[in-house]
Amino acid sequence: MEKPVFYLLPTPIKPGGWETIPDYAIQIYHKIDYFIAENAKTARRFLSEINHPLPQSEITVHNFDKNSGSKDADEYMQPLTQGRSIAYLSEAGSPAIADPGNQLVLWAHRHKVKVKVIPGPISLMLALAGSGLNGQNFHFHGYLPVKSHAFARKIELLQEDSVKRGTTHIFIETPYRAEKTFGELLKVLHPDINLCVARDLTLDAELVLTMPVRDWKKEKTKILAEKPLCVFLFAAAGAGIN
Amino acid sequence: MEKPVFYLLPTPIKPGGWETIPDYAIQIYHKIDYFIAENAKTARRFLSEINHPLPQSEITVHNFDKNSGSKDADEYMQPLTQGRSIAYLSEAGSPAIADPGNQLVLWAHRHKVKVKVIPGPISLMLALAGSGLNGQNFHFHGYLPVKSHAFARKIELLQEDSVKRGTTHIFIETPYRAEKTFGELLKVLHPDINLCVARDLTLDAELVLTMPVRDWKKEKTKILAEKPLCVFLFAAAGAGIN
Repeated sequence: MEKPVFYLLPTPIKPGGWETIPDYAIQIYHKIDYFIAENAKTARRFLSEINHPLPQSEITVHNFDKNSGSKDADEYMQPLTQGRSIAYLSEAGSPAIADPGNQLVLWAHRHKVKVKVIPGPISLMLALAGSGLNGQNFHFHGYLPVKSHAFARKIELLQEDSVKRGTTHIFIETPYRAEKTFGELLKVLHPDINLCVARDLTLDAELVLTMPVRDWKKEKTKILAEKPLCVFLFAAAGAGIN
Repeated sequence: MEKPVFYLLPTPIKPGGWETIPDYAIQIYHKIDYFIAENAKTARRFLSEINHPLPQSEITVHNFDKNSGSKDADEYMQPLTQGRSIAYLSEAGSPAIADPGNQLVLWAHRHKVKVKVIPGPISLMLALAGSGLNGQNFHFHGYLPVKSHAFARKIELLQEDSVKRGTTHIFIETPYRAEKTFGELLKVLHPDINLCVARDLTLDAELVLTMPVRDWKKEKTKILAEKPLCVFLFAAAGAGIN
């Protein structure tokens, strides 16, 4: 008997954008009939989009989201102990980075199950590569504090770190707060700091733009309104340059 | 005239492993006849592996490595100012993260040239997803100090940060130092810390394994000898778990 594998399978960032997913990921999808997903409904739509050979009624898809816990992990991961390979997918992009899937991965490691990650698009890394900022030392923070004072204090600390150590700092922001956050960033950051704004990665409306804060202030373009999740990156000028 | 684009194109981590690269990346490769590469020789081999429609003599490939500077960037990027799209590729995996390509990307931003990143495999992110460690707050450090004392001090600081803030710390190590570094890590880290070792991502020999330091000490497996670049990740137990 082949040893069971816990696959982490990529999904597109762009709705329907399967061209961004390597073919061998699709081939693995087609071999699996038991899935755990951040959103079971979206996952079933994905399986239909990529023409999974089995009818939906013969495919199991469990929902595992931020409200799920270790009891759910125990239950849903059971097939792996019986020699059956299963796969986890997130709602968009590569799984087990910015979603609850890492709990399932830890479960697999604790039970000596082989974990195999299949490459796919990752917004924050597309943003980092496209930014031109230092990729040899970077810190991803997820979301930063919402309250203006706490946010400004945090940005000051990160800016200080970037000037000292050359770290690129990366964080994400929800669409409805992105414009406000952008304004506050411009206020707090030093004019020399390189700031990158990225959104809609892999989509037609993709934007990845890096300028010193000084130049962003001149542009005053309202580039963020009503757009999806935004990635902000900044680093001291010269960081990562040989 | 269509606006020129500066593409960042992925290459496989696994030699010849083009199945890990999405098809639309190959289609873009085929449309481009002017490349800048971390290693021009490897790049020409890549173009031949993916059956670029033009003969090598009609394709330009400039070498841009860690010894290149802003004068080279100025020269090689010129075609973009004349409306010609060009592409950059690294020696293995997704470009402009752990290679000198970011200088070219900054050049493009300064000259208002559109930058487009095509997704591909990234060792450190495959390692992070496969580790099960906190992906909502992580810091990639590139290489850590080589000298034992400085290394131990740095690891102590990072460990303290992980216990306080839940950060996952990630660093890479060259093959010939990996075993020694692994031994030193086991000495310095607290037994409760979750440590992940990852190497050969996307290759047949792929390894991604996470255990508390306590368990790694029991195993005493010599898993690292004579293997390629190693990715080490660690985080405090419970970091990133809801």
